[in-house]
Amino acid sequence: MQQTKFLLGEDRIPTHWYNVVADLPAPPAPVLHPGTGAPVTPADMLPLFPPAVLEQEMSGERWIPIPEEVRRIYALWRPSPLFRARRLEAALGTPARIYYKYEGVSPAGSHKPNTAVPQAYYNKLAGTKRIATETGAGQWGSSMALACQMFGLECTVYMVKVSFQQKPYRKSMMQLWGAEVVPSPSPRTAAGRAILAQDPESQGSLGIAISEAVEDAVSREDTRYALGSVLNHVCLHQTIIGLEAKEQLALAGDYPDVIIAAHGGGSNFAGVGFPFVADKAAGKQVRIVAVEPTSCPTLTKGVYAFDYGDTARMAPITKMYTLGHDFMPPGIHAGGLRYHGASPLVSQLVHHGIVEARAVGQLACFEAATLFARTEAIIPAPESSHAIRGAVDEALQAKEEGKERVILFNLSGHGHVDMAAYDAYFAGQLEDFEYPAEKVEASLANLPKVKL
Amino acid sequence: MQQTKFLLGEDRIPTHWYNVVADLPAPPAPVLHPGTGAPVTPADMLPLFPPAVLEQEMSGERWIPIPEEVRRIYALWRPSPLFRARRLEAALGTPARIYYKYEGVSPAGSHKPNTAVPQAYYNKLAGTKRIATETGAGQWGSSMALACQMFGLECTVYMVKVSFQQKPYRKSMMQLWGAEVVPSPSPRTAAGRAILAQDPESQGSLGIAISEAVEDAVSREDTRYALGSVLNHVCLHQTIIGLEAKEQLALAGDYPDVIIAAHGGGSNFAGVGFPFVADKAAGKQVRIVAVEPTSCPTLTKGVYAFDYGDTARMAPITKMYTLGHDFMPPGIHAGGLRYHGASPLVSQLVHHGIVEARAVGQLACFEAATLFARTEAIIPAPESSHAIRGAVDEALQAKEEGKERVILFNLSGHGHVDMAAYDAYFAGQLEDFEYPAEKVEASLANLPKVKL
Repeated sequence: MQQTKFLLGEDRIPTHWYNVVADLPAPPAPVLHPGTGAPVTPADMLPLFPPAVLEQEMSGERWIPIPEEVRRIYALWRPSPLFRARRLEAALGTPARIYYKYEGVSPAGSHKPNTAVPQAYYNKLAGTKRIATETGAGQWGSSMALACQMFGLECTVYMVKVSFQQKPYRKSMMQLWGAEVVPSPSPRTAAGRAILAQDPESQGSLGIAISEAVEDAVSREDTRYALGSVLNHVCLHQTIIGLEAKEQLALAGDYPDVIIAAHGGGSNFAGVGFPFVADKAAGKQVRIVAVEPTSCPTLTKGVYAFDYGDTARMAPITKMYTLGHDFMPPGIHAGGLRYHGASPLVSQLVHHGIVEARAVGQLACFEAATLFARTEAIIPAPESSHAIRGAVDEALQAKEEGKERVILFNLSGHGHVDMAAYDAYFAGQLEDFEYPAEKVEASLANLPKVKL
Repeated sequence: MQQTKFLLGEDRIPTHWYNVVADLPAPPAPVLHPGTGAPVTPADMLPLFPPAVLEQEMSGERWIPIPEEVRRIYALWRPSPLFRARRLEAALGTPARIYYKYEGVSPAGSHKPNTAVPQAYYNKLAGTKRIATETGAGQWGSSMALACQMFGLECTVYMVKVSFQQKPYRKSMMQLWGAEVVPSPSPRTAAGRAILAQDPESQGSLGIAISEAVEDAVSREDTRYALGSVLNHVCLHQTIIGLEAKEQLALAGDYPDVIIAAHGGGSNFAGVGFPFVADKAAGKQVRIVAVEPTSCPTLTKGVYAFDYGDTARMAPITKMYTLGHDFMPPGIHAGGLRYHGASPLVSQLVHHGIVEARAVGQLACFEAATLFARTEAIIPAPESSHAIRGAVDEALQAKEEGKERVILFNLSGHGHVDMAAYDAYFAGQLEDFEYPAEKVEASLANLPKVKL
C-alpha cells in the first residue's frame, strides 16, 4: 500500500525551537515605543511579558531549548502528522508530489497552541497567576484558555463582541477550558468604557480588545498579557511545525522544492517556513511562499516601513510590511488573515527576497478548499485554504510544465467551527474584493514619521 | 519522557475485521420480517443492501478480510491514536492506568466513517450509483456523505428537521462532502407527505427519516440504503477500533482489566469491545462494560425480547434488549444514545453475561467530560462522555480499593460541533431524568407476539 501519512513518535518532538534571527542577512530593526518613538527596553515590556519570553523576543541564538514541561503538553497531540495528498494529486492530474503538515489535530483545532503552551509555561515559571488576552474569531483565545488550564493559570479573554455573539462555539470552548470570556468593549476597562460611552452598541474590534487586555494586564500585579501572532517569540515557538515536517519528509525520501503557508500575522507561515530559511541560508535551493488574501495584501501591496502594530497606536512601532495602521480590510471569512501589518521577521525575509509573497482571492480559496475536502477528506479552516490554493496553483503549473515538483504546505487548522463560511460560499454570497488602491494610499499617508 | 500516545503506522491497519458471531455461546436469533413475522431472506434485503454487506450481516466466519480500497481510505486517519490519560489519572489520584482510543481524528470527527467507508465501497462494487440514508444529529449523515464522496457515489441524507434547523454545521459538512441534505419529513416521499398532510409543521423524528430513506432506496433501481449502527455488519466494521487498541496496548506493555464504551445502538461499543470478547472466549479475565444513559436504559432496564427496530414498525423484528418500540426517550444532549433497542449482538452478549451494562445520568457525564477536557485537553462528544464517566468511576473504585487496574475506554468523537450542549450544562439548564418505569411498562406491553 502506498504510504499516506508520515508519523513520528513523541520522542521525536524537537528539543529546540529554531530562531531565524541567527540566519538573517542583517540584524532586525529596532522596536520603537509608540509614545516616545525611542527603542523599547525590557523594562517597558516586563509588565506585559515574563522574562523568559522577553529574552526569546530579543534573542539571536539559533537554537533555543524547549522545556520538558512544554514538550510533555505538546505530546498530547504532537508530532502532528505529515500527509502525502495522493488523492488531491490524482484529481489535479499533476506530476507534483504534494505534502501537507496538519495542525488541526491539536485539541483547539489549529497551530495556535504551539505558542500558547510555552507562553503559559513561562508565565507560570515567573509567578504570573492570570493571563489577559484578546481574541477575534476565537482561535487564539481558545488556545490560550487551553494552555492556561494545562498550567493552572487563570485566563480572561476579551472577545470582539460581534464574534462573541456570532461564534458561540469558540466562546464555549474557552469556557469549557476554564477561561472567563468578556465581550469587548466591556465596562471592565477604561478603554472599554470610553468606547461604550461614545457608542453603547459598539460591536467591538480587535484593536479595542487588545487595548482592554493590555490595560487589564498592566493594572494587576498578578496578571500578564499574551499575543498569538506577529512577535518574534511567537514565530519561534511555531517553528516546531517545520522542524517536524523536515524530518517527516526525509522519512518519505523527499525534500520540498517549495513551501507554502497562509499569511496573516505570520505565525503559521513562520512555523513551517523558517526552518527552511536555515537550509536556504546554507545554500539549498528552496522557495518559500507566503499566501495572503487579495483583500488584505500586506506583503504584496504594502510598504516596508515603520508602523504601529495596532489601529489605536498603543502597540509598539515595528519595521514591517504594512498597509497602514488605519487600513480596515473588508470582512472576509478568513478572519485570521485580516491584519494591516505583518510579522517583522517575515517582513524582513520578504524584503531581502528570501521569502516570496502572493495574494489570492477568497472565491479561489474556497474552490480549492472544497476540492481538498472532497479528495483528502479533511475540512480546512478558511485561513488554511489560502495555503491550499497556493499549493494547487503550484501543482497545476508543474502539470503545465510537465515537471516533477515537491510541494509542502501547512494546513494550519480544521474548519469544523467555520462551516458558516462554507455555507455562504455555496449560497453564492461571497465575493472577491478589488484591491482598494485609494484606501491603502490614504492609509499609508498616516505612517508614523520615524527618525533613526 | 513518559509516553502519552501509542501510534501505529498505516501498515498496521488490520487486514481483517473480527466477527464476534464466531465466538457466541449460541447462534444468533433469526431476524423476522416486520410484515409477515417470518425470518427475513436475502431477497427481502437485496433492494436495500449490496450482496457483500448482506453476506457479512449473515456471516459466521471469525475473520473477514478488509478490502485494500477500504484500507487505503482508512489510512487517511487510521490507525487512530491510543492515549494514556496520565493527566486525568493524576487529577483523580488513582492507581489505575487509564488508556483511551481516540476516534475523533477521523475527518467527520467520530468513529462512524469506519463503517460508512466499507458500506460505500461494497455499494460501488455492486453498481449502486446513489445512497439514501437518514441522520438525526448528523454524525452518521456526515460520515456517509464523506464515504460516498470518496467512492464517487451520490448521497441523499434525510435529516430530522429539528436538527436540520438547529445543527446547521453538520448539514454544511454533508454539503461540503457533496451530499444532498433533505429536511425530513419532506414532500419527496409518500411517508413524508403523509406526515406533512397530518402536520405541516412536523419537526420530524429519526423513525420518519428512516422511513423516507428506505422508501427512496427501494423506489429507485440505482439507489440503496445504509445504516450506521445496530446491524451485525456495522458492528463488524467497527471492530477495527478494538483490534488496533489491543496492539497499541501491547506496545504500552499493558492489557486491560476492563473495557468501557458508551452504548446507543451499539456500534462504538462493539468496535472496541468485541475483539476482547474473543479473548474472553479464549479464557482471558477481562470485563467489558457498556455505559448507557439513565434516560434511555435499554440494557439495564429493558427486556431481552423480539421487537421492531423502529417506532413505525417497518424495520425488521430482532431479538434484543428493548424498552419497547413505542418508548420515546427524553431529549438528552447525547442524541446518539437515544434508541429504544440495541444491537442484537451486543444484546446477546449482555444476555449471556459476557458483557456488563450500567447506566449513568447526563449531569455526571458532563462533569466527567469537563474534567477530561481540563486534563487531557480534548473536548469529548456528549455521547463519548458516557464512556469517560464509566472510566472515571472505575478509576475511583480502584483508588478506594487501593488496587492497580488497567482501564481502556473508547473516546468515540470530539465535541467541537456540540458546544451548545456544554453551554446548557454550564448554564445549569440540564437535568437528570428519573427512570420512567410506567412509560416503559406501557411500552413493553406493545411488543410484537412472536412464535418461533
